[in-house]
Amino acid sequence: MKVAFQGEPGAYSEQAVFNYFGDVETQPSESFDVVFAEVASGKCEAGLIPIENSLAGSIHQNYDLLLRHDLYIVGEYLLRVEHCLIALPGVKKSEIKRAISHPQALGQCAAYLRSLGVKPESVYDTAGSVKMLKESDARDTAAIASRRAAELYGMQILEEGIEDNAENFTRFLVISKTEGKPEGEAKTSIVFTLKNQPGALFKALSVFALRDIDLTKIESRPLQGKPWEYLFYIDFIGATHEDTARKALDHLSEYALTLRVLGSYPRFK
Amino acid sequence: MKVAFQGEPGAYSEQAVFNYFGDVETQPSESFDVVFAEVASGKCEAGLIPIENSLAGSIHQNYDLLLRHDLYIVGEYLLRVEHCLIALPGVKKSEIKRAISHPQALGQCAAYLRSLGVKPESVYDTAGSVKMLKESDARDTAAIASRRAAELYGMQILEEGIEDNAENFTRFLVISKTEGKPEGEAKTSIVFTLKNQPGALFKALSVFALRDIDLTKIESRPLQGKPWEYLFYIDFIGATHEDTARKALDHLSEYALTLRVLGSYPRFK
Repeated sequence: MKVAFQGEPGAYSEQAVFNYFGDVETQPSESFDVVFAEVASGKCEAGLIPIENSLAGSIHQNYDLLLRHDLYIVGEYLLRVEHCLIALPGVKKSEIKRAISHPQALGQCAAYLRSLGVKPESVYDTAGSVKMLKESDARDTAAIASRRAAELYGMQILEEGIEDNAENFTRFLVISKTEGKPEGEAKTSIVFTLKNQPGALFKALSVFALRDIDLTKIESRPLQGKPWEYLFYIDFIGATHEDTARKALDHLSEYALTLRVLGSYPRFK
Repeated sequence: MKVAFQGEPGAYSEQAVFNYFGDVETQPSESFDVVFAEVASGKCEAGLIPIENSLAGSIHQNYDLLLRHDLYIVGEYLLRVEHCLIALPGVKKSEIKRAISHPQALGQCAAYLRSLGVKPESVYDTAGSVKMLKESDARDTAAIASRRAAELYGMQILEEGIEDNAENFTRFLVISKTEGKPEGEAKTSIVFTLKNQPGALFKALSVFALRDIDLTKIESRPLQGKPWEYLFYIDFIGATHEDTARKALDHLSEYALTLRVLGSYPRFK
């Protein structure tokens, strides 16, 4: 089995692939578009995409890509993001003057870097920053990335868990050409549009509230070509093959102009 | 009067400042954080920030900054974004091989650039790309920015309105230390948190639906330190000094764990 992810080998997304699937072949991809394309073309059996970080919020590009492709969400995974301060072998922490990483990782370690008196510098990728550091051979520079990235490039971990806020999780979705049919507790993701009139969203949410269905996420995205109208993405507890969820979706289709089920999948515990 | 905006002189945000306020002094600022700081410190009487683009969606950083600062929203403005292909004086369109601009502007002109066979290259800012082009003196390069940016730097407009989708609008908010009291049709922006339980958002929306109050926007953002709990931002038609809106907010405060009114302001027509 081959699973596509965005980023360089050693990326947090690749770690999530191994945690979720076990020992599979991975396909590093330069962008989220490429991850979707690899799955759509059948070159990879599945793809794993980050959809939300508990500090930074949704990855909106992936919401847009879910809409554009005819793929299914078949799983979810939560990864606790633990950043490492990574340097060349033999370098001491006191030698470090600057830190390179993806801007989001730098932001999540901002207080830590300030306390060390280290200057942050943005590069395109977390795992990529380790690769760059190795190639540059700079003894005054550290990279911020995962433990796995450090090990992969034979680098030294100066400190682990350097993120300012420990409540740092990324939620990933597994995408596939084949629909899933989860057993046990499940989640379902849908996307819909509504008439632009007062109370429209309230009515849409009523189909869940009246059936005591728990919503875990709501996200709105602009509807292309219709300024100030929106697509709504909702995740709720339940699966489309279950009676209550099916009735709620039938009810929603009475109000929705368009409604698409993106998939039902086992809830991550 | 002095109004802060993010970007270089000639930025779309600066155009919005002039359209909204008329002939005022402007304060170019390097980041949205700086715009908020200029207003909070009293160095500028107002600031103008983009909050949403009809194609790209919300500017989430500004939602987060609204929460972090004790400022009021006192106005809104909608700008139709018209991109221009800008070159050095005397250059012909057939000489252009590459186009530089902010990635979002390049993305909004992608089909146009492909039809010309021109290669897009990202730089940090739209107006900044015109400045860079002037300094580089490159005859094979065009910048994509506003008419105003071209005029400001004495450059030539090769073509105007080159965006792929004409329905390209940016909504701006005016922020101030002083609360507004709008007359005529108004909008109000609020931010609140809810108990994490089934039906919570449905109940919150009921306070508007039961009073036929029209919601124009709902946005969710992660609650820092509480993974998978959210802040909700809502815009609705009405002003806090009006009876119906006040009652709806009193009602909402029965369900909301926290509720803050960001401001009431005249609706843009």
